[in-house]
Amino acid sequence: MAAAVSKISMDFITRLNLQNPHDVKPVNGGDTNATYSLYSGDKRYFLKVQPNQDRHYFDHEVASLKALSEWVKVPKVMKQGENQGSAYLLMNWIETGSNNQSALGEALAKLHHAKGKAFGFEVNADNDYFPKNNTWSSSWGEFFVHQRLEPLMALAKKQALWLNQRGDHFENLKKTILADDHVRQVEPSLLHGDLWAGNFMFDTNDQPVFIDPNSFYGNREYDLAVSKVFPGFNEDFYSSYEAAYPLEDGYQDRFKWYEFYYVLLHFVRFGDIYAPRLNRLLISF
Amino acid sequence: MAAAVSKISMDFITRLNLQNPHDVKPVNGGDTNATYSLYSGDKRYFLKVQPNQDRHYFDHEVASLKALSEWVKVPKVMKQGENQGSAYLLMNWIETGSNNQSALGEALAKLHHAKGKAFGFEVNADNDYFPKNNTWSSSWGEFFVHQRLEPLMALAKKQALWLNQRGDHFENLKKTILADDHVRQVEPSLLHGDLWAGNFMFDTNDQPVFIDPNSFYGNREYDLAVSKVFPGFNEDFYSSYEAAYPLEDGYQDRFKWYEFYYVLLHFVRFGDIYAPRLNRLLISF
Repeated sequence: MAAAVSKISMDFITRLNLQNPHDVKPVNGGDTNATYSLYSGDKRYFLKVQPNQDRHYFDHEVASLKALSEWVKVPKVMKQGENQGSAYLLMNWIETGSNNQSALGEALAKLHHAKGKAFGFEVNADNDYFPKNNTWSSSWGEFFVHQRLEPLMALAKKQALWLNQRGDHFENLKKTILADDHVRQVEPSLLHGDLWAGNFMFDTNDQPVFIDPNSFYGNREYDLAVSKVFPGFNEDFYSSYEAAYPLEDGYQDRFKWYEFYYVLLHFVRFGDIYAPRLNRLLISF
Repeated sequence: MAAAVSKISMDFITRLNLQNPHDVKPVNGGDTNATYSLYSGDKRYFLKVQPNQDRHYFDHEVASLKALSEWVKVPKVMKQGENQGSAYLLMNWIETGSNNQSALGEALAKLHHAKGKAFGFEVNADNDYFPKNNTWSSSWGEFFVHQRLEPLMALAKKQALWLNQRGDHFENLKKTILADDHVRQVEPSLLHGDLWAGNFMFDTNDQPVFIDPNSFYGNREYDLAVSKVFPGFNEDFYSSYEAAYPLEDGYQDRFKWYEFYYVLLHFVRFGDIYAPRLNRLLISF
């Protein structure tokens, strides 16, 4: 019956103070937001609503969009606020064009060429289901292990005792990452931070648009490894990325660390259906 | 991060035995299904996946689509099955055209002119979060009270004790419905059964397509009342429906019963954000 955590009321729309809102229609509903298309005059907008959150809920997304907008196309933020106890974010509407994976690979390479001074971000992403501590760190290994892997595993252990029996594999993984040569030398790239196929689209010029970013400066292999966890990217994407910004030797082995983290995130959020995949990864460490 | 209960693996796609599946991409994710667009050859398909369910999970939807297809446009079912412990439904892809609410109103009127011999349906819809007992009944009042309202309220009481204090209003509502003259005379129309704005679209000829039906033969006022609970329908819709199949006097009062049921459904599923609206309705009975 329902296709979103919260369907919003017409009353909610009215309170946005838009001139003559009309043709209000739910779109791309997700389990994390209620999402609507609507017009004001002849301009079309995209509305995201998160129930039971204050206006700061979208702060990290807004900061991510701003950082990305210097390098790649993203939606424009029109309004951010709070309404009837729910956070909302109003963006311009982007009409959809055709799949253009080569352009997507090039755009991602361009984004990854944007370098930061350290690993982390100006805003924490702890307004989601998982706290993501973006405090700046000079070491990618320390950042990924202490500010990503360990807090998430602590949450997983709280919810899923079976992981306690697998402590050695997890400890091995952390040691491997912290001792790795590539990890010690890597530069901080601006990342999308949640690069699965639900988080990009193409405009009517078939140019990629990045949406729902969860950005930080990190190892670019993170974005690429995450892209492989679920279907949606094809060879054109990977070969155009590789042509624009070649990966370094041994990336296949390192991808498994980031894949493990991303599958763990889904395991904690959605449960057992991700357990077999998580186990397969963990025992290889 | 996630936009669906379950993102599916490429392995899942491969097991569907489609010729050369490609351009697999999540779309319109909902909290009840993972949904994907994919191509096989140059044909595009829409895939719905429900984790941890067997192949019968989509039986009621398939039967609903079949019933509706005689009267209005719906997606075509290509394959139904079970894969890696998840139920799936593969349908043809429908390209989206422009909003055409007049045509939507006419199409719904056409659907409602399709009459059954009794209230109910050939398949129960108990594969969802809520059991919906579609056993045939000769009385709309009995069907709506005993096979819809009461089982749902029992579920609500189990989860939300505050409703116990409101027993009188609910008892009054049931008595009113069972004693109502209009209810006694109404004919069984084929209903969409979950008519909110996420459940219709328009094809490239701007013709309405009904999706995600939860059909049964019932009072057509049910579909119309449900359409008013969330935004997405406009005056063109209601006036073209009214022109094609006028409503009977007093419908505004009766709509409140169905609105109450639909809000209760959302309250049971999504909780407190629906409580104020539910209370406002209940105390008016």
